Amino acid sequence: METLHPFDSGIALVPAGPDLMVGRTLPEWANMVGPFGGITAATLVHAIQMHPDCHGRPVALTVNFAAPIADGAFDVGLRAARTNRSNQHWILELTQDGETKTTATAVFGVRRETWSGTEAVPPDVPTPKGPTGSGFPPPIVWTENYQMSFVDGALPGVDAEPNTSSTTTLWMRDNPPRRLDFPALTAMCDLFYPRVFLRQGRALPAGTISLNIYFHADQDQLDAQGDDFLLGTAHANRFSRGYFDQTAEIWSRGGVLLATTQQIVYFKG
Amino acid sequence: METLHPFDSGIALVPAGPDLMVGRTLPEWANMVGPFGGITAATLVHAIQMHPDCHGRPVALTVNFAAPIADGAFDVGLRAARTNRSNQHWILELTQDGETKTTATAVFGVRRETWSGTEAVPPDVPTPKGPTGSGFPPPIVWTENYQMSFVDGALPGVDAEPNTSSTTTLWMRDNPPRRLDFPALTAMCDLFYPRVFLRQGRALPAGTISLNIYFHADQDQLDAQGDDFLLGTAHANRFSRGYFDQTAEIWSRGGVLLATTQQIVYFKG
Repeated sequence: METLHPFDSGIALVPAGPDLMVGRTLPEWANMVGPFGGITAATLVHAIQMHPDCHGRPVALTVNFAAPIADGAFDVGLRAARTNRSNQHWILELTQDGETKTTATAVFGVRRETWSGTEAVPPDVPTPKGPTGSGFPPPIVWTENYQMSFVDGALPGVDAEPNTSSTTTLWMRDNPPRRLDFPALTAMCDLFYPRVFLRQGRALPAGTISLNIYFHADQDQLDAQGDDFLLGTAHANRFSRGYFDQTAEIWSRGGVLLATTQQIVYFKG
Repeated sequence: METLHPFDSGIALVPAGPDLMVGRTLPEWANMVGPFGGITAATLVHAIQMHPDCHGRPVALTVNFAAPIADGAFDVGLRAARTNRSNQHWILELTQDGETKTTATAVFGVRRETWSGTEAVPPDVPTPKGPTGSGFPPPIVWTENYQMSFVDGALPGVDAEPNTSSTTTLWMRDNPPRRLDFPALTAMCDLFYPRVFLRQGRALPAGTISLNIYFHADQDQLDAQGDDFLLGTAHANRFSRGYFDQTAEIWSRGGVLLATTQQIVYFKG
């Protein structure tokens, strides 16, 4: 009997009708309340990829975390609202007992050769030294599914002081290592703990409300990555009246910008 | 008879049933193909604000431009998929004759006092010198509805050379000036012409596929702005195989970060 990688178990779906798939939360992917948002986002990408109408590869994704997903089964309703020659627009809704828990839209596209160039510059950092642990306390189960090697801005410890910068930079990959694909890249876009923890030097109530990802890599650039570490760097622009943003870049070790991502996070404190 | 400001005419909607409103394109807001994406995005924000279930103010918005909107009437279907105590999640779809032209999701929220801080730094620029014109050729009608004073990275002229930077920084406001509100701020997030024009020193086929906005300002911060110029700065991170991103910040003259925004743009060339 073959054993699935924990990530593949986490995003598993069973078609249950036209435009409907059924998934299930797993204890290995538990966050403080409900599952890790990254595994939910990855599951939605996977749902589109499994759909018979799927055309092209992920270009853009927005996932809105409307309410906590309860332990157990969930439905993913999805539909291609529009299919053009070179791209396709999806609308998705994750529900439990008819209650909306997550909404999403996605753009898939067919890529073709054009002029290209990368203007962003990867952080100048040492190569990964091997996993150092996430620093997350045991209730945050999902972090066990990642190897994280922090270069800068690790999770503040018990005696941490406030910081003037919200930047975290780390090497990261699945644990155990797994060949990179679009769902895995999606999940890693949500790997950065809330930036307000770093600024305040302590954990406080906070949760992602909406996550946006632009995929800059095509399939061959993900294939070239294999199961190597990715370099992620994230920072916030503004914290104000209960919300802040965080913006991140995901780089390959070789300096290919695989994705840019941003999210808006709710916080108290 | 009172005359509406062109922006208010542009976003006008008539309720046509529960969860349905009807709008109409206007020649004054025409872009190369279909209307300016910013006026469409603003119309969707306005639709939510007009809906009797609306709770709170805009926090996050994603608009996916699935197909060109034809001249004439359009339907906006919208529904609050989830209403929580402090936020609300909307799903919207703009259609013409039943065909999906635009999809969107939005998060509205009720803000409350918390710790706050702005980590981003506004560009160090001279105060606005008055409008200098957008530099857009006549077929791009909508640009007449804005005053633009470019500090850096104006639209390339006929003999322009390629640039190594994709950064544009400009002062901007409605033309004629109009008190800032959330729909107007939404539209201005889409005011930056495609970054690939600047990099290549020429116009080429390009169009926004998906636009994402995080609103950092509450109503009182928009009110404080009045009808003054806003400072916008935009740049791209990566151009690759038919797509590029552009990321922008919208600042008040007084240095308040009102919104951060990003979009993914399709291009040929």
